[in-house]
Amino acid sequence: MTVREDVLKMKMVAPYLASTPREQRDTALEAVARALATKADEVFAANARDLAAAEESGVAQSIVQRLRFDEHKLEDVLAGIRQLVDLPDPTGRTTLLRELDEGLVLRRVTCPIGVIGVIFEARPDALVQISTLCLKSGNCAVLKGGSETAETNRALFGIIHDAAVEAGLPEACLLQVEAHAEIDELLACDDCVDLLIPRGSNAFVRYIMDHTKIPVMGHADGICHIYVDAAADFDLACRVIVDAKTQYPAACNAVETILVARTAAPAFLPKLGTALAEANVGVRATEEAGALFGESCAWEAVEVADFREYLECTLSVNLVDDLAQACAFVNEHGSHHTDCIITEDDEAADMFMRLVDSAGVYRNCSTRFADGFRYGFGAEVGISTAKVHARGPVGLEGLVTYKYLLEGHGHIVGDYATGKRTFTHRDL
Amino acid sequence: MTVREDVLKMKMVAPYLASTPREQRDTALEAVARALATKADEVFAANARDLAAAEESGVAQSIVQRLRFDEHKLEDVLAGIRQLVDLPDPTGRTTLLRELDEGLVLRRVTCPIGVIGVIFEARPDALVQISTLCLKSGNCAVLKGGSETAETNRALFGIIHDAAVEAGLPEACLLQVEAHAEIDELLACDDCVDLLIPRGSNAFVRYIMDHTKIPVMGHADGICHIYVDAAADFDLACRVIVDAKTQYPAACNAVETILVARTAAPAFLPKLGTALAEANVGVRATEEAGALFGESCAWEAVEVADFREYLECTLSVNLVDDLAQACAFVNEHGSHHTDCIITEDDEAADMFMRLVDSAGVYRNCSTRFADGFRYGFGAEVGISTAKVHARGPVGLEGLVTYKYLLEGHGHIVGDYATGKRTFTHRDL
Repeated sequence: MTVREDVLKMKMVAPYLASTPREQRDTALEAVARALATKADEVFAANARDLAAAEESGVAQSIVQRLRFDEHKLEDVLAGIRQLVDLPDPTGRTTLLRELDEGLVLRRVTCPIGVIGVIFEARPDALVQISTLCLKSGNCAVLKGGSETAETNRALFGIIHDAAVEAGLPEACLLQVEAHAEIDELLACDDCVDLLIPRGSNAFVRYIMDHTKIPVMGHADGICHIYVDAAADFDLACRVIVDAKTQYPAACNAVETILVARTAAPAFLPKLGTALAEANVGVRATEEAGALFGESCAWEAVEVADFREYLECTLSVNLVDDLAQACAFVNEHGSHHTDCIITEDDEAADMFMRLVDSAGVYRNCSTRFADGFRYGFGAEVGISTAKVHARGPVGLEGLVTYKYLLEGHGHIVGDYATGKRTFTHRDL
Repeated sequence: MTVREDVLKMKMVAPYLASTPREQRDTALEAVARALATKADEVFAANARDLAAAEESGVAQSIVQRLRFDEHKLEDVLAGIRQLVDLPDPTGRTTLLRELDEGLVLRRVTCPIGVIGVIFEARPDALVQISTLCLKSGNCAVLKGGSETAETNRALFGIIHDAAVEAGLPEACLLQVEAHAEIDELLACDDCVDLLIPRGSNAFVRYIMDHTKIPVMGHADGICHIYVDAAADFDLACRVIVDAKTQYPAACNAVETILVARTAAPAFLPKLGTALAEANVGVRATEEAGALFGESCAWEAVEVADFREYLECTLSVNLVDDLAQACAFVNEHGSHHTDCIITEDDEAADMFMRLVDSAGVYRNCSTRFADGFRYGFGAEVGISTAKVHARGPVGLEGLVTYKYLLEGHGHIVGDYATGKRTFTHRDL
C-alpha cells in the first residue's frame, strides 16, 4: 500500500475521529499514558539500539543527547499527556450564534483541521507530544520521524496507536511513515493532507516549504534581535542579552543580533563586551560597533550581510541611528519570530511594539520566553512565523479551524432578493 | 521601477499604516467615498470606453454586464464604504492578557496582516470593495484588475489612492499593477507579500494557487451538494433545490449535485423532475437515478465522474444508500464550500453537520445563503475553502492576524530553569 492510499483512507476516517466526544479522546489519551508507562522497557531497549548505532556511525555527542529517550524524558511526556487531558476541548466551541431571520440560525463552531502531516528530525519525545496533541484536538496524524531514532519511533508509535485504537478511536487515526523516500510522497498529498508541521533544522524545514502545496506551519529561521535603546538600563540590557544568548544557544528563540542606538553605544558597548567575555560569547561586529568595545572583549569584524543564525554562543552587533532605523532593520533582517527592545522610555517601547512585525515583540526581557509552556499554553506543536492562521507558539488552538452551520425551515435566497423577507441579523 | 521594488517599498511602509489610529483610517475611507461621489463622471466615462472596446471585440453580452460600472454600482460601493466606517476596528483588540510572573505581562493583540495582493478578473466594483476593506483593516494592498476594465480600474484607483493619501495615509499604502506580465512578478514576491486574494474563474484562481508560494485565500471550485434524506419534506426539498440552482446559477454557492436517499428516490424524483422542468433546469443523472424521473423531466445519462460545476441552469443527480454514504460522497466529490441536508430528522441532521467537512454545512435551506452580506459580516473579500486561517465568507476578521507582546523588567529565562522563580500564569 502506498502512502497516498493510506492517507486517503485516513481522510475518510477523519470526520469520524472529529465527531468523537471529548471523553472518548481523553480516555484514549489516558490509555496511551498508561501503556507508555507499562511498556517503557520496550521503548528504552529500542532507544539503546538507536543510540548504539548512532555512536557507531560517529554521530556528534551533542546530537546523540537529543536522540536519548530515558526515564526522565518518559516522565516529561507522561506529564504532558496528563496536562493535555485536563485542558478544555478545543473543538465544538460556538464562536458565533446569530439569527439571520426567523427560524434561520447561523452558528460558527470550532472543529479539527482534519489530517495533519508531522515530519520531524531526531527527538523521539516530539512523536509522543505531537501525536497526543493531534488526538486531543480530534485530528488524524501522519508521523514521519528521523531515521536516527527509527527503532525508538517504531516502539513509541506502536504503543500509542494500539492504546488509542483499543480505547475506541478509529484504526486509521494515526499512521507512521518510515522510509525517507516516502516524505516526497507525503508532500504530494495536497488533496488529502490539510496541514504540515515540520520540526527540525532550517534546511529541513525550508525543503518541506519549497516542495509542497500543503500549508506548512512552522519556521525555518529564528534570527531574533535585541535593540538597546538610548534610554536603556545598561545593566538590565547585559543581563537580558546574556540570558537570551547563553541559556540555550541552539534554540530558535535565542538572540542572534544586537542593535545599539548610536548615542548609547560609547557608554554601553564596553559594559556589554565585559559581560559577553565573562559568559564566553563570541562577538562578530561591524567595524564601527566593534571599535567601541575597547579592551572589553575580542571581536571579529564582519559586514551586516554576514550576520546569521548561529545556534551557538556567538552573536552579531550593529549600530543604528534611532528607533525607526532599528525597527526597519529588524523587519528587513529578522525572521519575524521574536524581537525585543531594552528601554525605560514608554513611548519608545510602544513605538517598537507597534512597528516591529514579529510574532513576539518584547520589552525588557529575554527572547527565550517565546515558548508555549512559558506562555501557559501547555504543550506546543511548534512556533509559527507565518502571518496567517497560527502565529507564535502554537498549542491546541492552532490545530482547530471552524465551520459555519446554518439551519432553516425551507428558507430560500429568492425571498430576500425580491424583498419579500429581510434579514434580522440578531446575535443570540 | 519593477513591481518587486514597489512592493518592497510598500513592505517598509506597512508597519506605519498598521500603526495608524482607527480614526485616521475611517476619515480616509470617508474621504474616499466623497471623492468617488464627486468624480463619478470620470469613472463612468472611463467605463464607457471599456464597454465600447468590449462590444467591439465581441465579448459575450453576459460578461459585458459584469464590466459595467454605473450609478447603481456606485451607490452600492458607497453604501459599502459607509458600512465599513461604522464597523468596529478589527485591529488592536486584546485577545489574551496574562501575567506570566510578577511584572512579566503577556498580551495577544490583533494586527493587520501587512501586504495583501489582490488579483481579480472583471467586476471593477471589486477594486473599490477590496481596497477599502484593506485600508479599514490597516493593510497595504497591491491591486491587479482585469484588462477588460483597465480604464475603469485606473480611474477608480487614482481617485481612491489620492483621497487616502490626502487624508494622511502613507503614499505607498495602495499600489496598482496593470500589465498582465506583472502578475507573475507579483506571484514571485513571497518575501514581501503576506497574502494573495484572487477573485475570478476557477482556472484563474487555480493558476494563482499553482504558481506562488504566498498563501492564497479563496476557492477555485464551488461544487455544492444538497442531500435529500429519507426523512425529507419533499416540497421543501424542491423549493430549496430550485432556489439554490436558479437564483444565481453562476455563483460559487449555487448547488451543482443532488444526492437522494435510495429509499426516498421513487417517491421524490418525479416531484423533483416536475419542479426542475418548470424552472428550466437541465438534468444530468446516473442511469438508476434518471430512470426514476419517469415522465416528469428530460434527463441526460452520465457517470458520476462527469459531474461538475456547471455555473449555469444544469445540475447532476445521484442516489446514495444512506446518510453515511452521502457524507462520504460530499467529502470526496465536493469543494468543501457549502453543502446541505434536507431532513425532518434531527439525528440525521446532526450527523450530517458533524461528518461533512465543508466551510458551510446547512439544513433545510438554500446553499445560496453562503455569503458575507447574508451572514451579517458586511462586505466580504471572498469565500475561502481553505482549512487554515479564514474559512467561509471572509470579512474584516480574515484580514487580521495577531502578535504577542511581552513586557518585563529584566526577566530572564535562566531564573525559571534553575527554579529561582516560577511562573504564575494568571489571566488578568
